Amino acid sequence: MKAGFIQTHPEFGRIKENVESALKEIDSLDADLVVLPELFSTGYQFRTKEEALKLSEPVDGGYAAGRLSEAAKKKKIHIVAGFAEKAGKKTYNSSMLIGPRGVVGVYRKAHLFWNEKKIFSRGDTDLKVYRAGGAKIGMMICFDWIFPEVARTLALRGAEIICQPSNLVLPYCPQAMITRSLENRVFSITANRVGTEERVRGTRLHFIGTSQIVAPNGSVLYRAAGDGVEAASMDIKPEEARDKDITPMNNIFKDRRKDLFVL
Amino acid sequence: MKAGFIQTHPEFGRIKENVESALKEIDSLDADLVVLPELFSTGYQFRTKEEALKLSEPVDGGYAAGRLSEAAKKKKIHIVAGFAEKAGKKTYNSSMLIGPRGVVGVYRKAHLFWNEKKIFSRGDTDLKVYRAGGAKIGMMICFDWIFPEVARTLALRGAEIICQPSNLVLPYCPQAMITRSLENRVFSITANRVGTEERVRGTRLHFIGTSQIVAPNGSVLYRAAGDGVEAASMDIKPEEARDKDITPMNNIFKDRRKDLFVL
Repeated sequence: MKAGFIQTHPEFGRIKENVESALKEIDSLDADLVVLPELFSTGYQFRTKEEALKLSEPVDGGYAAGRLSEAAKKKKIHIVAGFAEKAGKKTYNSSMLIGPRGVVGVYRKAHLFWNEKKIFSRGDTDLKVYRAGGAKIGMMICFDWIFPEVARTLALRGAEIICQPSNLVLPYCPQAMITRSLENRVFSITANRVGTEERVRGTRLHFIGTSQIVAPNGSVLYRAAGDGVEAASMDIKPEEARDKDITPMNNIFKDRRKDLFVL
Repeated sequence: MKAGFIQTHPEFGRIKENVESALKEIDSLDADLVVLPELFSTGYQFRTKEEALKLSEPVDGGYAAGRLSEAAKKKKIHIVAGFAEKAGKKTYNSSMLIGPRGVVGVYRKAHLFWNEKKIFSRGDTDLKVYRAGGAKIGMMICFDWIFPEVARTLALRGAEIICQPSNLVLPYCPQAMITRSLENRVFSITANRVGTEERVRGTRLHFIGTSQIVAPNGSVLYRAAGDGVEAASMDIKPEEARDKDITPMNNIFKDRRKDLFVL
């Protein structure tokens, strides 16, 4: 299968424009699975909870979910996309998995970064694994990377590809995701955005791009530039992620000395 | 305090020579805590279990433990050293912590790599944290790095410095240890060896050196060359590792969504 990402440059608050320009990229990309950045449809830096609630959308009936569902149906593909999810009076920093028959699942970010805690409600969904075409995928969002237990839990539940919509500003994640792939023998796809936002005076955020696709053996199959909109996909074999043998005598799941670990 | 490593080049089977040349390096290094490589006194590639048992030493009365204890007493320092530990009819791939008053503790490698499974018994000690001068330290050995739960368990138990005697042949670990330091906000010291061994025909092992000291914020304070004997130490403040705040709103320990994780 072909799996990839769209590295976008959203304009804050312009949901329709952001969705449409992502769709253009999706349309011209040859991929069975496409990952979009965190909050791809709204942009990142909300000033207040109220502003976020106003710009957030429900999964059912939301513009982003609707348009991505049309594209997934037309192209017979799966799409993972980060968005501001409206659920009653709450806003979650969420990621949706969309397939040819519509929304398959939603993950609400468990580990909110910095001021996100003032804007979003804490994720209340489980770390689930879904079938997406021929692959089993798990979703995590941006800062979740720093907690090894997130990718580990998804991998233990059978995820072959970890999809990570992101809005990275710190430089550590792309390198750390190599470790996440290695230690779990899974593919990982990080879709990051580019550009800057300074909607809160004095808090200028520069997003680092460098979206990437990593193989279970830790090799970086593709890494995007630090700036610029970009779409990329690679031919991958998800079944490679089922093989947890790192040497003829080491299976990194069976070898785990759970008797010694604390959570 | 000053903490560092000795990157050695042991000659297989020559315990006295290997210990004495490590002692020379220790003697000229200005450090309160020194980490030596895995199996620093014997070399790595044992042909058989019997050979390993023959070359292994008990903690009490062993040449390596005795001589390192003398040095630790004389210099009032702590030393972490990997060695082949004899315990009855078993041999463990172990690491000892030695202080001015002798042996403080022993860790027996939990995750044996490849053919080590044919040579050593599986570690049966806990992942403990020890006081070493002004710091709290934890020990792990080489391949333990690929299991994030090892460093995590040590850090959750209060380790400020993770000491990792190693005999690395694969290239991934130095980069992964940056992630281990970052995700736990701890110092890590990897002491690796250099040189090659081919005691089993067709299995030529090249050890990659690049011993390193990493800070809790993921910065590499020092990385050694890929070859050559080398000793290095850095001024570090172990108390920096007690601060688990990565932003004013994120404490990487308190933020952990244990309710979502599986072990």
